[in-house]
Amino acid sequence: MRALITTHPFGTVDPRPLELLRGIGVAYVLNPLGRRPTESELCALIADADLLIAGTEPITDRVMACAPRLRIISRVGIGLDNVDLTAARQRGIAVAYTPDAPAPAVAELTLGLMLSLLRSIHTANARLRADGWHRFMGRRLGTMTVGIIGVGRVGRRVIGLLRPFGSEILANDLEPAHDLPGVSWAEKNDIYDRADLISLHVPLTPNTINLIAAPEFDRMKPDAFLINTARGGIVNERDLAAALREGRLAGAALDVFGEEPYAGELIGTDRCLLTCHMGSMSVDCRAQMEIEATENVVRFLEGRLPPQLVPESEYRMHAARSA
Amino acid sequence: MRALITTHPFGTVDPRPLELLRGIGVAYVLNPLGRRPTESELCALIADADLLIAGTEPITDRVMACAPRLRIISRVGIGLDNVDLTAARQRGIAVAYTPDAPAPAVAELTLGLMLSLLRSIHTANARLRADGWHRFMGRRLGTMTVGIIGVGRVGRRVIGLLRPFGSEILANDLEPAHDLPGVSWAEKNDIYDRADLISLHVPLTPNTINLIAAPEFDRMKPDAFLINTARGGIVNERDLAAALREGRLAGAALDVFGEEPYAGELIGTDRCLLTCHMGSMSVDCRAQMEIEATENVVRFLEGRLPPQLVPESEYRMHAARSA
Repeated sequence: MRALITTHPFGTVDPRPLELLRGIGVAYVLNPLGRRPTESELCALIADADLLIAGTEPITDRVMACAPRLRIISRVGIGLDNVDLTAARQRGIAVAYTPDAPAPAVAELTLGLMLSLLRSIHTANARLRADGWHRFMGRRLGTMTVGIIGVGRVGRRVIGLLRPFGSEILANDLEPAHDLPGVSWAEKNDIYDRADLISLHVPLTPNTINLIAAPEFDRMKPDAFLINTARGGIVNERDLAAALREGRLAGAALDVFGEEPYAGELIGTDRCLLTCHMGSMSVDCRAQMEIEATENVVRFLEGRLPPQLVPESEYRMHAARSA
Repeated sequence: MRALITTHPFGTVDPRPLELLRGIGVAYVLNPLGRRPTESELCALIADADLLIAGTEPITDRVMACAPRLRIISRVGIGLDNVDLTAARQRGIAVAYTPDAPAPAVAELTLGLMLSLLRSIHTANARLRADGWHRFMGRRLGTMTVGIIGVGRVGRRVIGLLRPFGSEILANDLEPAHDLPGVSWAEKNDIYDRADLISLHVPLTPNTINLIAAPEFDRMKPDAFLINTARGGIVNERDLAAALREGRLAGAALDVFGEEPYAGELIGTDRCLLTCHMGSMSVDCRAQMEIEATENVVRFLEGRLPPQLVPESEYRMHAARSA
């Protein structure tokens, strides 16, 4: 039995996932590229794999056609936008994921991006090293109206972390949650109109691609801030760059991009804080994700405990998207 | 009646403090240097001032000797380490301050520095612009033991903001507070030994100068982090640079320095996040501080409402320090 592990790094913060695989006699190949493979690279790597422990690379029908022995795709993380679920089902390939493990780390990074952006922490540090002492005036989270779009595993944690700051919180999701006291449910347009800071916590789906683009930037307050730690593609990067250049937005922080590694125009745009898809990259959450993804493979093979298989709702959403 | 305003900037986030002064017929001079004046510069500026609205510049006996008409020193902020309180009393000069106004902004900056440092937000942003995509593995605040030294106005707010993260919190102050459930009181040495992250919220006094120096760094865990948003001088910067260079500490974030503007060796030291005394610099808190400091002057002159005069305990502490 052979496993291909494409997510990178893997087994470095905690050796247990690799020990688990060795323990059941699975041979594994770690991603030799040190970065996300392209579709063609993945085809070449996956030819004799029975098991795939996957990152966010494109796992298309073509890739699956290159992998005649493949029995399970086990995602390290929650997002499934890179997996052709319909093709996997047609080919009889199971798909598992680790939906809960990343959330605490993503929520903390989100708070960190908010506070860095509002107080120019990164800018003061860079300027002090480049051209000396500059004191930046900022805004305080506790005085702001914060809009949370997407109140799932991450969004509700962000709301929890925001609570003691005293911000007014507006929230939007497909259905309102009734267990979040002090949170006001609002239409998305209401949030664009009223929020001083908007943070996105939705998956990438046909409904959320380009969710935030020119019309939304036009609605937002010119002194508003935007945070995206969810998925690239939800924010239209070109429209964001234009909005920032033209002063229609005070600032933005992005951890995720349509193309990663990111090398686009936002790098040259002021008032934009950029990190490198590091939402889940805390030692504890990364270890938890890798262990759970590996356990999902082991459980799938041994059949004693159920793996965290992707639920039917994700297949339906994928089918609707492809239709 | 003439006022000298040395803190800079002043009246820019909110015009009300300057309107208050004009409203009672006080002529004012704004700091023409755009930075903290030295003792000699202050002597030259203060010669004909009746009122001083002050920043953190040295307000020594020599400075007061240059200001024969001076009746009140009104600090914009809480720290009094720059004011010779004994000399002020001997010369019959009142001293007021704004102890509560900065705390919310300082506490938020502290959380921002913690999260930036733990997740390398500033580093990922700088590296992406300089040499491309680097994903940094970090640590999660919720998994850490956080030591809070100084549980006054700022320290207790930091504890409040930390609560939903789920960190274990150790706290130390001259006397334990009994209204902070879930916080464990600990000796300072206990905190140095056990904390993964230490945040300082004490004033600069004879007891806190060099509080954190080589012996304390030697006690700390090699993977610990240190945050100082309180006052420069509390952390020995040379010993901190050595500890970071030698891997005896994982990282540090400083907003305050012994000499400001700061231009010392920590600028060339890795794993050190540096900001420019921006703790109180949120629009709302800065406005509140400037308004309160100006109101303290107005109340002192008009005598209808009591200004926030510095309490006796500060004079005693100052006298002990000078003895």
